[in-house]
Amino acid sequence: VDREQEIIERIARKLRTRNLGHEASRLVLGMGDDAAILRLSRRSDFVVSCDAFLENVHFLADSHPAASVGYKSLARATSDLAAMGATPRFFLLSLALPAKRTGKWLDQFLSGLAQAARGLRMVLVGGDTAENSQVTVNLTVIGEAEPGRAILRSGARPGDAIYVSGTLGQAQLGLELVLRKLHRNSRWQKLLKAHLYPQPRIALGGWLARRRLASAMIDLSDGLSTDLTRLCEASGVGARLRLGQIPAVTVPAGLRRLGLDPLRLALDGGEDYELLFTVHPRGEKELHTAAASLRGGVKLTRIGEITRKKQIILVVSDGRPTSLRPGGWVHFRPRMRWR
Amino acid sequence: VDREQEIIERIARKLRTRNLGHEASRLVLGMGDDAAILRLSRRSDFVVSCDAFLENVHFLADSHPAASVGYKSLARATSDLAAMGATPRFFLLSLALPAKRTGKWLDQFLSGLAQAARGLRMVLVGGDTAENSQVTVNLTVIGEAEPGRAILRSGARPGDAIYVSGTLGQAQLGLELVLRKLHRNSRWQKLLKAHLYPQPRIALGGWLARRRLASAMIDLSDGLSTDLTRLCEASGVGARLRLGQIPAVTVPAGLRRLGLDPLRLALDGGEDYELLFTVHPRGEKELHTAAASLRGGVKLTRIGEITRKKQIILVVSDGRPTSLRPGGWVHFRPRMRWR
Repeated sequence: VDREQEIIERIARKLRTRNLGHEASRLVLGMGDDAAILRLSRRSDFVVSCDAFLENVHFLADSHPAASVGYKSLARATSDLAAMGATPRFFLLSLALPAKRTGKWLDQFLSGLAQAARGLRMVLVGGDTAENSQVTVNLTVIGEAEPGRAILRSGARPGDAIYVSGTLGQAQLGLELVLRKLHRNSRWQKLLKAHLYPQPRIALGGWLARRRLASAMIDLSDGLSTDLTRLCEASGVGARLRLGQIPAVTVPAGLRRLGLDPLRLALDGGEDYELLFTVHPRGEKELHTAAASLRGGVKLTRIGEITRKKQIILVVSDGRPTSLRPGGWVHFRPRMRWR
Repeated sequence: VDREQEIIERIARKLRTRNLGHEASRLVLGMGDDAAILRLSRRSDFVVSCDAFLENVHFLADSHPAASVGYKSLARATSDLAAMGATPRFFLLSLALPAKRTGKWLDQFLSGLAQAARGLRMVLVGGDTAENSQVTVNLTVIGEAEPGRAILRSGARPGDAIYVSGTLGQAQLGLELVLRKLHRNSRWQKLLKAHLYPQPRIALGGWLARRRLASAMIDLSDGLSTDLTRLCEASGVGARLRLGQIPAVTVPAGLRRLGLDPLRLALDGGEDYELLFTVHPRGEKELHTAAASLRGGVKLTRIGEITRKKQIILVVSDGRPTSLRPGGWVHFRPRMRWR
């Protein structure tokens, strides 16, 4: 059972609204996708999402650099806008922290946050501060999209190809190094970057939205197995995933010996913030031709197809197909399956 | 020193943006007021604010009813929209809580939240959940205002009259009962309502904005002494406050004996969520005539005047004027002056 999903459903049930009145004309998309869509004019939609980033749940204040905590709090929230194909614009910061972190720690946190804001071209417009026993960060991000162009989770249809950007499992590999206290070893420094400073796929998301190339999209925050399941459930479809085609992280032999398996990391590792999207077969040629023109370039890999049968099947090239269970990222508490 | 203000200024300094580009045309008002104002069309502005509500900082999960925690999390966030004269529309909920609170506690929390949403006519459009050792609530609220009509903190001018809605100190009186463990005593039940279920002044705020009657406005979240200081600083003015005119809470003799002083509660008590606003002398007559027509009725009291000299003076009817220091609400940690 997806514990987070269950709680979200209880919230949605309790907060269900009848008689929307004036709000109805403004609300294009409510709960359940990567972000909500609000419309005030015919020319533009606001796309809104919020994201908690909590000490001892999402990061360890003594192991993770303060600059990474600041950077990542905004980057991960903004990935939800990328997943809609929206252009990031504004954010609000709600920050609670212990008095002992208001000195140098806060300065470095803010430097990391400012670095992310510059890179994402986002403007801080408001917020809230308080004292708390643990560092508690909440980011609300606001983006903009052309009306009708945002890409939802729910549009995948049988026969659509499934694509993923970048390389999967890199962020989880970095997290494993931190959890095993190997992150100060200079030998593995380069492997930490995807974990500490992830880059949401803003340009790719916006490009897919403008060209109407993706039928459905979600960002990979909780791992391929979990997020593909969510996209399929929202679309009322299933999927066939080809194991051999998954662009998995390269794990050095020294770390493989510690039990770090590339495919396991790629399937269940969280926080890659890559985009998972589906494309109608007619759009695939355009996707390949045009993707080359994307500034900076981004690797796109076809990893399977959407199926009618509501089940996710993992196809191993030399074995029998097996069914895939969501085994995504569970933060620092393996006991919990709650995001 | 206002510790919260100091931290907000550090955040603003670090996150300052040059070359706003496309965002500039959308951003009407950024950090530093009760909420930010974003414009997408000529007909309407979005007014956005966020607010953390944290266990052991803003509430005690074992003393405060879960329904009150849910209700108040939204009510207090929405008070920032009332303070701009905006009409509340949407909200996002970021909720982290311990596994032991996911049963009945969560149900009651959601019932209280749903009650507030119905009363305020707001729609939940998104959010985020996680497990955490303490209950951590973050509300982002989105309202709507006619362009140019939102009321800022910065518009007060010398000679303007200072008004306040309702009765001050009621919420703090309720909090004191909880802190002294008197809140289960049936004798004082009625005194808890303003603390547990505050009512943001949406109708009054919107009415003042539509009639352009208030030159500046702020909601009383941290206490009259602190919030009046903030309004004066934002406007670059001072104030003369008449102690005898402050509409202070009535404290039963049995509680006065415990040291609960009505004027102290009214001056420094937090969380009343009443509105503090200034009115040009020309507008006062209209204010009094028209206020009577406000549905439900709301008591408005003139408590002083804005002055040129940047100082807040407290005038006691039979004594010498003294200068007022901000002594507002400091949550559950008297050591901290940080909101």
